[in-house]
Amino acid sequence: MKPKKLTIFNDPIYGFIRIPSDLIFDLIAHPYFQRLRRISQMGLSYMVYPGAHHTRFHHALGSMYLMQKSIRVLRFKGVAISEAEEKGLLGAILLHDIGHGPFSHAMEHSIVNGVSHEQISLQFMQELNKVFNGELDEAISIFTRKHPKRFLNQLVSSQLDMDRLDYLKRDSFYTGVSEGNTNADRLITMLNVVDSGNLVVEEKGIYSVEKFLMARRFMYWQVYLHKTGVVAEQILISILKRARFLIKNGRQLHGSNSLLFFLQNDINRDRFDAQVLERFSKLDDIDILSAVKNWQEEDDKVLSTLCKMLINRKLLHIKVKKEPIKKGKLTRRKEKVAKMFGLSTEDEISYFIFTGEIENRAYNQESQNIHILRKNGKIVDVAKLSDHLNITALSKTVTKYYICYPKDAV
Amino acid sequence: MKPKKLTIFNDPIYGFIRIPSDLIFDLIAHPYFQRLRRISQMGLSYMVYPGAHHTRFHHALGSMYLMQKSIRVLRFKGVAISEAEEKGLLGAILLHDIGHGPFSHAMEHSIVNGVSHEQISLQFMQELNKVFNGELDEAISIFTRKHPKRFLNQLVSSQLDMDRLDYLKRDSFYTGVSEGNTNADRLITMLNVVDSGNLVVEEKGIYSVEKFLMARRFMYWQVYLHKTGVVAEQILISILKRARFLIKNGRQLHGSNSLLFFLQNDINRDRFDAQVLERFSKLDDIDILSAVKNWQEEDDKVLSTLCKMLINRKLLHIKVKKEPIKKGKLTRRKEKVAKMFGLSTEDEISYFIFTGEIENRAYNQESQNIHILRKNGKIVDVAKLSDHLNITALSKTVTKYYICYPKDAV
Amino acid sequence: MKPKKLTIFNDPIYGFIRIPSDLIFDLIAHPYFQRLRRISQMGLSYMVYPGAHHTRFHHALGSMYLMQKSIRVLRFKGVAISEAEEKGLLGAILLHDIGHGPFSHAMEHSIVNGVSHEQISLQFMQELNKVFNGELDEAISIFTRKHPKRFLNQLVSSQLDMDRLDYLKRDSFYTGVSEGNTNADRLITMLNVVDSGNLVVEEKGIYSVEKFLMARRFMYWQVYLHKTGVVAEQILISILKRARFLIKNGRQLHGSNSLLFFLQNDINRDRFDAQVLERFSKLDDIDILSAVKNWQEEDDKVLSTLCKMLINRKLLHIKVKKEPIKKGKLTRRKEKVAKMFGLSTEDEISYFIFTGEIENRAYNQESQNIHILRKNGKIVDVAKLSDHLNITALSKTVTKYYICYPKDAV
Amino acid sequence: MKPKKLTIFNDPIYGFIRIPSDLIFDLIAHPYFQRLRRISQMGLSYMVYPGAHHTRFHHALGSMYLMQKSIRVLRFKGVAISEAEEKGLLGAILLHDIGHGPFSHAMEHSIVNGVSHEQISLQFMQELNKVFNGELDEAISIFTRKHPKRFLNQLVSSQLDMDRLDYLKRDSFYTGVSEGNTNADRLITMLNVVDSGNLVVEEKGIYSVEKFLMARRFMYWQVYLHKTGVVAEQILISILKRARFLIKNGRQLHGSNSLLFFLQNDINRDRFDAQVLERFSKLDDIDILSAVKNWQEEDDKVLSTLCKMLINRKLLHIKVKKEPIKKGKLTRRKEKVAKMFGLSTEDEISYFIFTGEIENRAYNQESQNIHILRKNGKIVDVAKLSDHLNITALSKTVTKYYICYPKDAV
Repeated sequence: MKPKKLTIFNDPIYGFIRIPSDLIFDLIAHPYFQRLRRISQMGLSYMVYPGAHHTRFHHALGSMYLMQKSIRVLRFKGVAISEAEEKGLLGAILLHDIGHGPFSHAMEHSIVNGVSHEQISLQFMQELNKVFNGELDEAISIFTRKHPKRFLNQLVSSQLDMDRLDYLKRDSFYTGVSEGNTNADRLITMLNVVDSGNLVVEEKGIYSVEKFLMARRFMYWQVYLHKTGVVAEQILISILKRARFLIKNGRQLHGSNSLLFFLQNDINRDRFDAQVLERFSKLDDIDILSAVKNWQEEDDKVLSTLCKMLINRKLLHIKVKKEPIKKGKLTRRKEKVAKMFGLSTEDEISYFIFTGEIENRAYNQESQNIHILRKNGKIVDVAKLSDHLNITALSKTVTKYYICYPKDAV
Repeated sequence: MKPKKLTIFNDPIYGFIRIPSDLIFDLIAHPYFQRLRRISQMGLSYMVYPGAHHTRFHHALGSMYLMQKSIRVLRFKGVAISEAEEKGLLGAILLHDIGHGPFSHAMEHSIVNGVSHEQISLQFMQELNKVFNGELDEAISIFTRKHPKRFLNQLVSSQLDMDRLDYLKRDSFYTGVSEGNTNADRLITMLNVVDSGNLVVEEKGIYSVEKFLMARRFMYWQVYLHKTGVVAEQILISILKRARFLIKNGRQLHGSNSLLFFLQNDINRDRFDAQVLERFSKLDDIDILSAVKNWQEEDDKVLSTLCKMLINRKLLHIKVKKEPIKKGKLTRRKEKVAKMFGLSTEDEISYFIFTGEIENRAYNQESQNIHILRKNGKIVDVAKLSDHLNITALSKTVTKYYICYPKDAV
Repeated sequence: MKPKKLTIFNDPIYGFIRIPSDLIFDLIAHPYFQRLRRISQMGLSYMVYPGAHHTRFHHALGSMYLMQKSIRVLRFKGVAISEAEEKGLLGAILLHDIGHGPFSHAMEHSIVNGVSHEQISLQFMQELNKVFNGELDEAISIFTRKHPKRFLNQLVSSQLDMDRLDYLKRDSFYTGVSEGNTNADRLITMLNVVDSGNLVVEEKGIYSVEKFLMARRFMYWQVYLHKTGVVAEQILISILKRARFLIKNGRQLHGSNSLLFFLQNDINRDRFDAQVLERFSKLDDIDILSAVKNWQEEDDKVLSTLCKMLINRKLLHIKVKKEPIKKGKLTRRKEKVAKMFGLSTEDEISYFIFTGEIENRAYNQESQNIHILRKNGKIVDVAKLSDHLNITALSKTVTKYYICYPKDAV
Repeated sequence: MKPKKLTIFNDPIYGFIRIPSDLIFDLIAHPYFQRLRRISQMGLSYMVYPGAHHTRFHHALGSMYLMQKSIRVLRFKGVAISEAEEKGLLGAILLHDIGHGPFSHAMEHSIVNGVSHEQISLQFMQELNKVFNGELDEAISIFTRKHPKRFLNQLVSSQLDMDRLDYLKRDSFYTGVSEGNTNADRLITMLNVVDSGNLVVEEKGIYSVEKFLMARRFMYWQVYLHKTGVVAEQILISILKRARFLIKNGRQLHGSNSLLFFLQNDINRDRFDAQVLERFSKLDDIDILSAVKNWQEEDDKVLSTLCKMLINRKLLHIKVKKEPIKKGKLTRRKEKVAKMFGLSTEDEISYFIFTGEIENRAYNQESQNIHILRKNGKIVDVAKLSDHLNITALSKTVTKYYICYPKDAV
């Protein structure tokens, strides 16, 4: 198991991340994985939080680091984890997000309709498994939640997995929103595995779990769903939608081959084959951002206006409400907007005035629950154990409503 | 002075950065400044330190924050700083790096030959001064070191200015190289101004100054001049040089209009007028990186090979020595390289095997010195005061020599 | 206002704490305040958290630092705070805890029966006000909540005051229980004052307030009410109770004059005059701990056994339950204990086997509420505004029950 | 090896410190080790740095944590360390400072003349080895530097041992003097063992070693030898000296039995037997501080005055110079002092006016050197390798001179 190459990554959060094996070393060196260096973890959030430029590359390394820690803790408590299973866990967590495209959320609404990043991750893993002669079999089994030892699957994907532990900590760190920080070390220290093969948290960790769920909720409202981030993302979705519309109507647009491929074709789940995957593997933030920069000069008023908004951060105004937006309000504003930008159709205007919803649920009681191992040996859902109603309260979905329009259109 | 807009930036380092005035708010909102969001502070260093994706935008805000702190400390000590001077200081430090292009160091060797970023910063400031009706007069006077109160100039530009205090701290933070961290707060607390109008550090701060110089030296060798970062940068320089060569020879290359403009034209100091500035203001990391990505598909072997190296991080091998590289050694390797990549001319081969130098000096005794105010009221250069030879030792320039070649050409 | 002395304290949390005036400097230098250097902030918690040795001295400085920050923020928002009011605020917060005795919670149950530390703080402040010729008038008016500008009182004492902001952060920092950390900077940034003169938090700070209340609740269960800390404190209470009993029965015990004074006399609210205050001002952790150390050698079995337990950290066993402890269970154990330690009376045995309660409420809806200023200008209680039931849930008092007994008595 | 008890300590610096075995658990629980909870790591430095209340208990745990890390790194690199050797390393580092008395430096000048804390540590270890049936044989062999595998000894005691790595980091952390922080993680990562069995640092760690030496030097001048700390310590030495003098002259002084034993007897190296050790094991900060508190009320003018100075932090004035203090200066002042305090003899006066020296050397080239493993396999002293003169400069001893006298005696 001793790797030939002793490689170390500096990480401002964990200090040093050591590469545990040659396989991991080679996976990281592969162009598929190197591409993650050019995919921002938090999309356009840097427009609100100027430090939020960290990448999915870094997050993948961080998640792997926490997985190494979990393995050490569980083994220390006597949980059997074989070398093969360890390899599987590390491979699965390292590659769990490799299917993310640039500005993933915006993409899903505009370019790779209905193809989830998990599916694409799986395709990448299968492709890499060919390159590495089946060395990822176990990792794939874990990633697809098919491993008979359930806790392995749960370490990679559940409501308390290494993915979440790292991204909350990392996003909190780079944005400077310290409220989102969680004590991953303590949570990992409290992990255990019970006879059923399920991952549990020991009872004394109950407040840390609550704290973790609260931190996650905090990050959603304060960061991931920050209104300025939401409006920036909506503008990017509109840009891609408009570009696709123009191309369909015969307009030539500048752009990288990879981006144009996805704009010209309707790629859905069924069409996402190895060739599409290869195209997809060339796509990153650079393709999107350089297109947006170039399209500022396009003739199409809608497209160029939206692109300038994004590049110069002169975004639409956004209001967030607890009640759905009343439709009546918009009519007069729309006229103004039509004049402001010289737009003619209702469809064009709808790029500049629109409504939407954001929602969040801190804890899902229905699947991949967090289980607590009580001192008496019984296992209960965290929502049942917490004193009073805290986590039950966190289990309801909260929905908010927003409206966007140009600042001067009031 | 009370601003209409109470804006705050989250900063993982300082907590919150408050925007002190409407002028600063409007400067930040200007497209010239927003462009800095797309210019990485550390260029290609993220290939070594995966966290190093912070931007010049963030550094400019951080420097301004430290300037606010310095102003508070100096006023507390009875140093007179008028509101106009405060405005000048904040404007000057906010805009001090606005002239940086993408991958600045590489650019200076390939695109804007012999035009320093300071000069371009000044031109941006003059342009903005027109927009803001002369509100930047004082800032320009300070930035150009012409202000009669010398300490104002020194706070913006000297061997212990707010620029350096922020970038060392920030680069250390984002890379995770904690040795580079400096106690900016203590250094600022020790600042004072003497009768001559010069900025000094009070004697009890002497060890902090030494510590700061050591940290800077550390960052140079460990980070800024890290051998992998050096080779990545050299490859980028080579790419731009090759692209320019091909264009000169009539080849059509893909690229943004702004980038192509600088590749097609020989811009030097004299030709850098308002129109060139406008072109320059459109240029950022995206233009460079999207070109490199596209050029991977170019026919020219040299260009496409170099671009693939950079994108897939399959860099050339680099060796760093204390002695100059002996020329004899290279001949046999060159033949191998010619075969490997199918190259025909000596010139082409020199893109893949080359030598160079890196150098660093922790403290420059000859200009913009750091002065210590002794308890007896005398002022001495920090190099004179430190016990024994520490800083004198740091004042020598250290040079190292490197050679780069393909891994398999040995 | 410019102080003659520029004094600075290093603080690992805030960096530097600057002493803002000569009055504050002189208050800190006074023996009454210096005494706080010998009073631990967290009593016996260091038996669980080995880093928890910080003092009330440090906490008082930290609270003052946050008050300076709040004043700056509020003034920046246009809230009028005169220099006299600033002086009052700083004096009140600096001295708010000066009445704490050593191991305050244990003392209140054994030595200064029914005299709250707030009352003693007030007496110290009145005494100091004589020394400083009335300079603390405004501080006393604020500390006693009589100042007509209500927000001044609330900054010093409410459910979101500078005291709590500092102690949560500080206790979290020194224990290493990072979940208790709060973003004091953000909370302070969100403070404002409305027409009624009340302190409010702006609506966008709602999640930070929730986070703060959660952190406080976390610290209570994980730290302040940690079972090992609870049992250590109970043993200390027992020690002082036993010592007092022995003295009443004519036994001579070693101890400092100050401690013996409080053990020999029944000091209550009415008897706490200037002379008692002077005695109290000599009392600190050293008096208690040296007595406990000495009493290990006392003849009285109960006293010496308890003292050895505390010094060697061989504490009683403690079990915490959600239900009250059933009395039946104890009888057999008591016999064993009587034998183990050679005890004869029920009363003596009760020093070694006993039950108790701990309780906590994260938010009190009934007094000193936290008010939120909505965007529409209305003011509501934080418990009303938070989505769903979070804070309402936090408003219920949670009670737990414990039993203590010697490990070997099972 | 799997311990029965999974115990964990919270550490604000490293997160969690896990107790690796039952032996370590039991050693920590022993009263000899628990005593370290009552011995401050930094003596009276809290008079300058209010956060500096951490204990030798905490430092011992921290050093053990770093040792665990080093063992992991070295094994990862293929260095053989058996389980017995691991046990020895952990025991030796855990107990390396167990022989420290309260205010160690002051004690060595007044109470345990000429008995080093290393010797006392060894005696404690031998005593514990009896209790634990020889389980500490290997630890003792390492602690006394007799182990044939030299790197084991060097990990516990050399110029780059786990002791130094932890105390610099910890003292820097608790004082808030961030300049003293060192990247222990990186240094440990760079450790290796060469054929000769010596511990070395790999060449790429050279700048980190320099940084470490600089940080240490910084801590000495800024913290350990801070002038206010020096004068406080001198006053404590004087107090103990005076107390001993008075006792010798028949005066009865209050104090704990343990303290009085050491004041009444002249304990030197030869007389430090098992019985003395037992006495010593009862002695901690509490004994000293409670004596100082009590002695404020003593009749002897010298003693009571000095004690009040220390308790109320009304210290003597101190001036630090680069040149020896000229004796002439003192005469007039002495007369004043004699009057101020009503002193009659030269000897009494010398408690209030005196001179002294402090010195520091950042790196000792003569013993226990730090060796660098060059890339070419050669081993050189760090002082030889560093560019130019940095470390050579640090190898000189710097001496400073001070004079102390009452503030009002000028």
